[in-house]
Amino acid sequence: MTNIQISDLKVAVLAGGVGGAKLVLGFDRILEAGNLSVIVNTGDDFRHFGLQICPDLDSVCYALAGLANKTYGWGQENESWQVANALADLGAPTWFQLGDRDLATHLERTRLLESGKSLQDATQILCNRFGILSQVYPMTDEPAATMIETKQGSLLTFQDYLVRLSAEPEVARVVLAEAERAELLPASKKAIEEADLVVLAPSNPWVSIDPILTLKDIRKILTSKTVYAVSPIIQGKALKGPAAKMFAELGIEPSSQAVLAHYRDFLDVFVYDLSDDQLSDQEVETVQLQTIMKTDEDKIALAEAIANHFLKYRGRL
Amino acid sequence: MTNIQISDLKVAVLAGGVGGAKLVLGFDRILEAGNLSVIVNTGDDFRHFGLQICPDLDSVCYALAGLANKTYGWGQENESWQVANALADLGAPTWFQLGDRDLATHLERTRLLESGKSLQDATQILCNRFGILSQVYPMTDEPAATMIETKQGSLLTFQDYLVRLSAEPEVARVVLAEAERAELLPASKKAIEEADLVVLAPSNPWVSIDPILTLKDIRKILTSKTVYAVSPIIQGKALKGPAAKMFAELGIEPSSQAVLAHYRDFLDVFVYDLSDDQLSDQEVETVQLQTIMKTDEDKIALAEAIANHFLKYRGRL
Repeated sequence: MTNIQISDLKVAVLAGGVGGAKLVLGFDRILEAGNLSVIVNTGDDFRHFGLQICPDLDSVCYALAGLANKTYGWGQENESWQVANALADLGAPTWFQLGDRDLATHLERTRLLESGKSLQDATQILCNRFGILSQVYPMTDEPAATMIETKQGSLLTFQDYLVRLSAEPEVARVVLAEAERAELLPASKKAIEEADLVVLAPSNPWVSIDPILTLKDIRKILTSKTVYAVSPIIQGKALKGPAAKMFAELGIEPSSQAVLAHYRDFLDVFVYDLSDDQLSDQEVETVQLQTIMKTDEDKIALAEAIANHFLKYRGRL
Repeated sequence: MTNIQISDLKVAVLAGGVGGAKLVLGFDRILEAGNLSVIVNTGDDFRHFGLQICPDLDSVCYALAGLANKTYGWGQENESWQVANALADLGAPTWFQLGDRDLATHLERTRLLESGKSLQDATQILCNRFGILSQVYPMTDEPAATMIETKQGSLLTFQDYLVRLSAEPEVARVVLAEAERAELLPASKKAIEEADLVVLAPSNPWVSIDPILTLKDIRKILTSKTVYAVSPIIQGKALKGPAAKMFAELGIEPSSQAVLAHYRDFLDVFVYDLSDDQLSDQEVETVQLQTIMKTDEDKIALAEAIANHFLKYRGRL
């Protein structure tokens, strides 16, 4: 065990979109090819214009392929908007921005699914074509839409709420009824079981990670593993997205402390930002790291810091 | 009746794609707004990348909207290919060329259909957005795929045969089993019944017009109407497409005479090209006109010549 290198570690990351994709890129770059498995939230997936759109899978894959847009948390760099402009000319809905290259991904995924492939297989095929060596798994092949119940009593898909309605409706409840019935993909289960280290990426715990944690049996598997979580909250604010407003409506305090508490059942080590107020916990080890990832170097540095911490942590067990 | 103007005529055109769209444009330009109804073949419609693609409806709509590509028989003028290039980069099938503006039509149609609209309603909505005043109807709202049975025993959708396989497989039979079970759209039926003049456009009789003629009851309706047909064959050759090779395989002689014979049951007047060999027929009146339509003026001139002929023909009845 003493001579183990970071690159030899097998790591499974549970990830949503933006923050998840960043940390995933870091681990992809420091591990041996194939040693990283990413289990990605599919609760945000939805059908639009007849296409199956998987926002978090796309964010993760574009990041790993080096194609991710450097400004937004979604879409590709150097994107064009020919179809989006034509749709606008046609009076079609334009609330979900469809870049041309991004659209090609949605089209090809939909074609693969309609040809009878599972989402897992379609994702594997797309990853191969993108030249991605890490394993990227949808959390499940089954329908598992995250729905938002508003205080006005509407039930919205997550993209409808977040993008079409700009997260304006007041949220009464996050409904994960489909995820409760869905099974974690056997390949994801195996990847988690075989991992030395499981990391919950700094994605929104309540809407990006919770759908994964809601799948059957996963919490039981996690309790037997060494699990790290990275807080997406710094000084009471989410780095991205409408999380703070949503948390307030749901009565959740947006703090690293609340994130730690949310994961407590299975958590071993909690990573939070250097600039955040210091935490201490009786049960969970806490560690402050530079968690804001602006450049690829930041992403690699955070992954490395977590991996190094894990090697020492394991040495102490 | 003596003072009737061409523009007052109500005309119903049965049309396929390329040749059909040209003559339809001519009638659209010479008739009062709303006096033209076009009943369009949907046998070529197919699903691709999860989208509902209706090649003949698109050709007719793009022509009427003044958007049609002037070089090809399909797609729009000033088209871009961003998505098509991205699909190629992704290793996706590229046999069916999807221009960016064309793709916006397929996306919006599919969205309308998935929202519960019928193909008729979706077509009407798209026509409104394109600013088209003539009535464009799909021949039916029901599935009516034209299938090609090859001599090797495969059963292919028409686009699979024509585009993906470049019309290379030898054709044993054109299978219109779905069209046989489908109903002509009530609105199309009404448009034909109310028309002064019904015109079969110079589209391929065996693969573009036959699907329409195969729908229940339509032949009975046509026998009670004044029906003109325009031959798409000139001196044994189709102006466009793989018709000649296909006809040879099916044992059909590619000639205006064969087209006339094919429509004889309900045909009143047969229009064929000035440059073709002269025909005579005991039952059907024949008339030679300039049927090659290269410019919009050619299209308008042919529509006008047919309408003028009809006014005289009706005067003689």
